[in-house]
Amino acid sequence: MRRKVYVEGERPDIRVPFTEVVLSGGHEPVRLYDTSGPGSDPEVGLPPLRRPWRRAGTQLAAARTGEITPEMEFVAIREGVAPQLVRDEIAAGRAVLPANVNHPESEPMVIGSRFLVKVNANIGTSAVTSSVAAEVDKLTWATRWGADTVMDLSTGPDIHRTREAILRNAAVPIGTVPIYQALEKVGGDPVKLSWEVFRDTVIEQAEQGVDYMTVHAGVLLPYVPLAVGRVTGIVSRGGSIMAAWCLAHHEENFLYTHFAELCAILARYDVTFSLGDGLRPGSIADANDEAQFAELRTLGELTKIAWAHDVQVMIEGPGHVPMHKIKENVDLQQEVCDGAPFYTLGPLTTDVAPAYDHITSAIGAAMIGMFGTAMLCYVTPKEHLGLPDRDDVKAGVIAYKIAAHAADLAKGHPGAQAWDDALSRARFDFRWEDQFELALDPDTARAYHDETLPAEPAKKA
Amino acid sequence: MRRKVYVEGERPDIRVPFTEVVLSGGHEPVRLYDTSGPGSDPEVGLPPLRRPWRRAGTQLAAARTGEITPEMEFVAIREGVAPQLVRDEIAAGRAVLPANVNHPESEPMVIGSRFLVKVNANIGTSAVTSSVAAEVDKLTWATRWGADTVMDLSTGPDIHRTREAILRNAAVPIGTVPIYQALEKVGGDPVKLSWEVFRDTVIEQAEQGVDYMTVHAGVLLPYVPLAVGRVTGIVSRGGSIMAAWCLAHHEENFLYTHFAELCAILARYDVTFSLGDGLRPGSIADANDEAQFAELRTLGELTKIAWAHDVQVMIEGPGHVPMHKIKENVDLQQEVCDGAPFYTLGPLTTDVAPAYDHITSAIGAAMIGMFGTAMLCYVTPKEHLGLPDRDDVKAGVIAYKIAAHAADLAKGHPGAQAWDDALSRARFDFRWEDQFELALDPDTARAYHDETLPAEPAKKA
Repeated sequence: MRRKVYVEGERPDIRVPFTEVVLSGGHEPVRLYDTSGPGSDPEVGLPPLRRPWRRAGTQLAAARTGEITPEMEFVAIREGVAPQLVRDEIAAGRAVLPANVNHPESEPMVIGSRFLVKVNANIGTSAVTSSVAAEVDKLTWATRWGADTVMDLSTGPDIHRTREAILRNAAVPIGTVPIYQALEKVGGDPVKLSWEVFRDTVIEQAEQGVDYMTVHAGVLLPYVPLAVGRVTGIVSRGGSIMAAWCLAHHEENFLYTHFAELCAILARYDVTFSLGDGLRPGSIADANDEAQFAELRTLGELTKIAWAHDVQVMIEGPGHVPMHKIKENVDLQQEVCDGAPFYTLGPLTTDVAPAYDHITSAIGAAMIGMFGTAMLCYVTPKEHLGLPDRDDVKAGVIAYKIAAHAADLAKGHPGAQAWDDALSRARFDFRWEDQFELALDPDTARAYHDETLPAEPAKKA
Repeated sequence: MRRKVYVEGERPDIRVPFTEVVLSGGHEPVRLYDTSGPGSDPEVGLPPLRRPWRRAGTQLAAARTGEITPEMEFVAIREGVAPQLVRDEIAAGRAVLPANVNHPESEPMVIGSRFLVKVNANIGTSAVTSSVAAEVDKLTWATRWGADTVMDLSTGPDIHRTREAILRNAAVPIGTVPIYQALEKVGGDPVKLSWEVFRDTVIEQAEQGVDYMTVHAGVLLPYVPLAVGRVTGIVSRGGSIMAAWCLAHHEENFLYTHFAELCAILARYDVTFSLGDGLRPGSIADANDEAQFAELRTLGELTKIAWAHDVQVMIEGPGHVPMHKIKENVDLQQEVCDGAPFYTLGPLTTDVAPAYDHITSAIGAAMIGMFGTAMLCYVTPKEHLGLPDRDDVKAGVIAYKIAAHAADLAKGHPGAQAWDDALSRARFDFRWEDQFELALDPDTARAYHDETLPAEPAKKA
């Protein structure tokens, strides 16, 4: 049996959720990290639990003064570590705690290589398909299966309303790519973009409560030609937009030239930077090339500027990388970004399996997680082919929870193996019900077992 | 469009199959390794193509005299390497070419770390479910999706007849675990097993044409107590059977004490040893323990005995291993077994995801392949839960073809990346039909694309 339990912190309004798996035969219950949130009526939204903790200044600023905020205490309980470790890692820039002051519905979580590896799920409406209700449903569905953060990548006319519905129902941090909405505002023509349109969009989204924003400030004018000889050019949508702008105006990327102003805005709301890799490789052939690494070095430079403004930063990474070139990505990122958390998309370890890119990339994700990546952006089976539906979201989240947990085991995260051991003991004892309840996906494990051996006694034999 | 083409060798009866993907717009066609066989009427079986190449002495014996057999030439064309490399790797024991003289229907293939990483699929009837026809269908289905060898793990009354049907329809090498049938012959009681019953079973299977046999000759009496303190004890079926026999008789494993006699039998048919890891770990907790590595060292000793009899050998490996302990397995195996090919089951990199063990293990399989494992035994989504059906066989094979190809890329196998590059170019050019045809699974890639964008123009846009 599974049930939700809460562990209280020093102050009674710190209530940290866990899924407790109650086992048969007197075996100790097992507590699992729980991202599912308290559950909401989509029309009403979640209660603003963090409202009383509201503060001026970012979590980074607080950590630097030595303060342990309620958010830090919350995540320390969640991770099973000392609150001082959380504070110190945030203070050093090696971890982020994305928590916009205007998103009080979220349950605090931390992203950093000393903590459990996290998983992000992308959702979002497009002009072609989907509705606001469907996206809120995908959010709830993604966090039910373990997504630690969700990015709303909506395009089309309903962006603001979709995001509002998502934020008010999200117990996890929400990320966005503001350039997508800015582009809608200028009629879809990248050339018409400007710093002013972008700035206003960022303020609009920060006011709503977006917790982290992807900003492609490292796509510099001189780097664009480096992508010309590639097999797959520039595949990042944000990267393509900014490259088009730079080339049309023959001016430096306005996200780069206005970066300090942007920092000042993000600091006011404690929005975390997710510095985008607009020149990430889109194929095995283009992995670890000059374009990619030139941009990464610029992201390292921007990291220091953000930190000078007390803004939290994580760095986005590839994409498509063969296994033997994965470690180099983490090592270089950690070096040039002074240990800021790495947040990678996969990477896919081969290009030959469209429809199975949750698997091609789970391999890369597990490895890059082991090497120190702090958060893994999921890839669904529909990657490169279409928009993910509910089943694809689940398939993507499950594949990435596997990758993240495999990485936690390999890194020797304290307590990670207890889950495996509990399940293995249940397996060895033929305690089938315990095995199902401990499974990452109890429903499917039970269904598969029942297909061949449906009788009740077979589950206890 | 895909079509089957054949490349002829020095002698006209060497005809090596490839899948040729014909691309649009004048792009060069791409040739893919093809395991699907010429196709058979299950009642008639395949033509005995290798009958004219029949010889006395094993491929190993021939290689040691410097001979390049027709089988070696066949695999050289298949792998795109020099026939001398094939011969030399076989002569050194670093590769095997499993080809029982009584299985002339098979298309030669090679297993070794210098060649493409191979995938094995397990099928087989059980007392509970399945039929002979269903197993032949699974064989054809598994090789259609790329299985390089198939193991028939049938239990129950129909073992002999099932195996006969499989062998006569198999264009790939077939492996078995003879102790399973020997156990049926003694009424299912391991204590009643004997060298004589086992020997006769091996001869029966060798006469039928089985290409490689798993033999648990390394489960020694003194090693059995080493598994007592484990979380999941002994999980290998063959390992449990032999451990039970050793304990009941308090005698040394008869497969070990009669190993030289066994070699003499296998040499007559050129059956390849797959030295089983009866003490492989069944959980993350038990990985790389003393029981496992003690047995591995004994397998190293047996490898040399087999080689002295000109018998080809590969070594089976785990199982369940967290990522950071995978490399040690390959390194130790290569060292103690003097470079004999390693053939591993996964390994699963976490225990928490029953119903998704094709993914938990594809991660480990890709990594262990990169480190030098020559063949990967697939794991299906039903692992630990039930018997795989057709869909599970496909899911397992596809996940493992991904792992194997990712490993080929990481090892820099000549020509491996050409496939990725062709698909990536098709993707960048929006040549959707080319992308589907180049995909590991064209059917699913096309279906996923059509779900969101079904219109014909969308495939060319």
